[in-house]
Amino acid sequence: MKTDGDLEESRQPQAPVTAKLAEFIVRTRYEDIPAEVVRLAKNSFLDTLGITLAGSVEEAPSILCRFAKEAGSSPVASVIGKGFKSAVRDAALINGTSADVIGFSDISVVNMHHPSVPVCAAMWAVGEQCRSTGKALITAHVLGVEISDKISAAIRPGFQKKGWHPLAVLGTFGATAASGKLLGLDVGQMANALGIAAQEASGLRATMGTMSKAYGGGRGAENGVVATKLAQMGFTGPTDVFEARNGFLQTFGGGAGGDKILKHLGAPYEFESPGITLKRFPTCTRSHNAIQGVLELKQKHAFSADDVESVECSVTPAVADLLKYPSPKNKFEAKYSLEFCVALALLEGRVVITAITDDRVNEPKTLAVMRRVKMVVSPDMAALGYNPEAAPFGCMVTIKLRNGVAHTCRVDKGPWEPATPPSWDELLEKYRSCAEVVLSREKIDESIDIVQNLERAEDISRLMDIVHT
Amino acid sequence: MKTDGDLEESRQPQAPVTAKLAEFIVRTRYEDIPAEVVRLAKNSFLDTLGITLAGSVEEAPSILCRFAKEAGSSPVASVIGKGFKSAVRDAALINGTSADVIGFSDISVVNMHHPSVPVCAAMWAVGEQCRSTGKALITAHVLGVEISDKISAAIRPGFQKKGWHPLAVLGTFGATAASGKLLGLDVGQMANALGIAAQEASGLRATMGTMSKAYGGGRGAENGVVATKLAQMGFTGPTDVFEARNGFLQTFGGGAGGDKILKHLGAPYEFESPGITLKRFPTCTRSHNAIQGVLELKQKHAFSADDVESVECSVTPAVADLLKYPSPKNKFEAKYSLEFCVALALLEGRVVITAITDDRVNEPKTLAVMRRVKMVVSPDMAALGYNPEAAPFGCMVTIKLRNGVAHTCRVDKGPWEPATPPSWDELLEKYRSCAEVVLSREKIDESIDIVQNLERAEDISRLMDIVHT
Repeated sequence: MKTDGDLEESRQPQAPVTAKLAEFIVRTRYEDIPAEVVRLAKNSFLDTLGITLAGSVEEAPSILCRFAKEAGSSPVASVIGKGFKSAVRDAALINGTSADVIGFSDISVVNMHHPSVPVCAAMWAVGEQCRSTGKALITAHVLGVEISDKISAAIRPGFQKKGWHPLAVLGTFGATAASGKLLGLDVGQMANALGIAAQEASGLRATMGTMSKAYGGGRGAENGVVATKLAQMGFTGPTDVFEARNGFLQTFGGGAGGDKILKHLGAPYEFESPGITLKRFPTCTRSHNAIQGVLELKQKHAFSADDVESVECSVTPAVADLLKYPSPKNKFEAKYSLEFCVALALLEGRVVITAITDDRVNEPKTLAVMRRVKMVVSPDMAALGYNPEAAPFGCMVTIKLRNGVAHTCRVDKGPWEPATPPSWDELLEKYRSCAEVVLSREKIDESIDIVQNLERAEDISRLMDIVHT
Repeated sequence: MKTDGDLEESRQPQAPVTAKLAEFIVRTRYEDIPAEVVRLAKNSFLDTLGITLAGSVEEAPSILCRFAKEAGSSPVASVIGKGFKSAVRDAALINGTSADVIGFSDISVVNMHHPSVPVCAAMWAVGEQCRSTGKALITAHVLGVEISDKISAAIRPGFQKKGWHPLAVLGTFGATAASGKLLGLDVGQMANALGIAAQEASGLRATMGTMSKAYGGGRGAENGVVATKLAQMGFTGPTDVFEARNGFLQTFGGGAGGDKILKHLGAPYEFESPGITLKRFPTCTRSHNAIQGVLELKQKHAFSADDVESVECSVTPAVADLLKYPSPKNKFEAKYSLEFCVALALLEGRVVITAITDDRVNEPKTLAVMRRVKMVVSPDMAALGYNPEAAPFGCMVTIKLRNGVAHTCRVDKGPWEPATPPSWDELLEKYRSCAEVVLSREKIDESIDIVQNLERAEDISRLMDIVHT
């Protein structure tokens, strides 16, 4: 490219962010990671594996499998839930898409990013090829989450507001960190890999509502795998791509300084603070407080859906902005329908993945309950602040029963947020409900056993063997 | 992605750009393309094939070949100059990288984009698999160049200035148009493909000077192939990705209106106006006028390099901005060194690809001549304007001989610009000099014969067979 160079930009001298990121990734050892972070990473590992299994039956990963099989590649890395192995990059692409497609992945609400999808999809594929240990996987996971979330912390919310798809763009760097760690890149190779990754990082929020949204999760994972494997072979990228003129922080980050990335690298780790929310329900995070409130009231006061005359949910504008389908047409829209989510909670006493189907969306009984649910944008709730950092997605739930009694509760913290973490058993329940979509009970048990003792696993390929069939 | 949605952006209602682009691509037939455009596209086809052959021996595509071979894939599409076939996406990636790596590709100076690299790399791979006709290839080439250049026309120069790598980002859409045309996508599939492509489009100018720059050309080609093959299989993307909120024109285009893309679609075609420059010399376009001036003076006045006391080249700031290596350390920097380019022209009477080597950069005789060359940024030249549209890269060359005589000439138009096009024979000379890096004379002759009669070729795979070995 020659022609575009004549547009002079003043070059901001910046600290060597890229080199320091590369060093941090290469130098950090399993032993350096606090035990609590290891525990949280294992939770996230199990959680992400479960949603990947559940997502594997969806149409988007199935089309990608057809595409990969048509191209043909060596059977090296497991395609989770799909019964075959493929080249590492294909497995990363398909597994990342499976992990993202049902919208059930963990999330840093504060740093506005879903970190684990691309990181796990990349590290599973590379880890299987490298026969990595459980400790290596945990380390790669922690580093991938750390890098991509800290980048997001430096450039949010302008980055997200501009229209970029964080999971896809930032996930590329998370996957690069994780994959590069497992491959054992040195500092120079890792800096090159980050430069190559920056040439690949992409993704627009306009893809939401189409298969291309989940494709962003897959591509992020694949990008990281490709960037690191190429760097290992001697391929070069700019080793200063974050701080460089025409580099990542200029183009995607609106000129944000790299010091914000470096300042808190691993101190504390993202897993510990601000912490990662493991989604409790397979619906939009912003529906969780309302669902939680309904379930609590239902359990406490023991009424049935038939007893309910009306439900009013007072929410912040941030919630109303995304939960925009009062009459969803399909299961994708249902995840963004407060009316549907609340009706399901009322009818079933729980909100699980198998209940969110196109059929259910059009079922008369469910529709009848949905008509009794109302979402109200409340000035009081709005006063809690627009930025989720202050008050994520507060909700005031008021249920009027046909007998004239009214129950109300306010849910400031949703379930499974950093302040309201799930127990291991609760996580297992979610994992089982997801994994049973494709795995036998025996395989589910075996996979749980491996993840529960992940730091003692000598070769992760056994787990990958189990979950790919 | 849920968290980022709460950042409300006012939605600009826009015309349905994406649908109209998809329609244009699907509806345009070979018969609709003016004969002159067909002729220019054939020139560009030959030119791009030649530089791909020459680039194929470089390190970047060689590493990609190792990567692709390690992953393994079905031998379907020719990897040019590398003696093997691979999956279509791999061939597109590697050939696109080969085509870009020597910096010798055609360019729309006005619309600030190198269109043919990703377009050709994508259409060669898909065309071979589909056994496309020469007419189909020409049509795909014209459409790919048309789409990507018109998008650039709508968003330049802000897009380039921001730091994006046009060849990689816009090339993704060019490759999508070309590949989708050959695959025979319908309008709906093509709109989906453009949406998928937008989730893939990426690339930063910070990669210049590393292998990742050429990787952008390869990825652009690969992205287009993958997007269109997935769309054909039923994968979905946003079908309004150009005009959508959080879509391409918002994120990459700074909110530019899509009407600028649509207004002149095919009327006239980019190949005709503003026209495509086929690079005469394998160096930065901005060095071309100086080289041209030196060669003209040398030919006219018949002096040798030893006769020369000094050379002064007065240039615009746009030229000086990129030709920033008075003492280049390697062949990559040499392409951006006015001193080296002029010295080579003085010594050899021509500037060809085989002369630009790391050895030559450090050769005492060349260095001695380089020391007599001086670049001056001239206020007069600067007054011609910063934007290449007005006066691309004008240069005033003054050569003082040791005998006291001085010769001078001003070169406003460089060689092979739209206003100074090459003859077919001149193009053949460039093609031969490039192709001979890997092909035998017989194969060169045979490939020329096919391209010269491209509109009569019944199956392009014969040509691909010739050029991949």
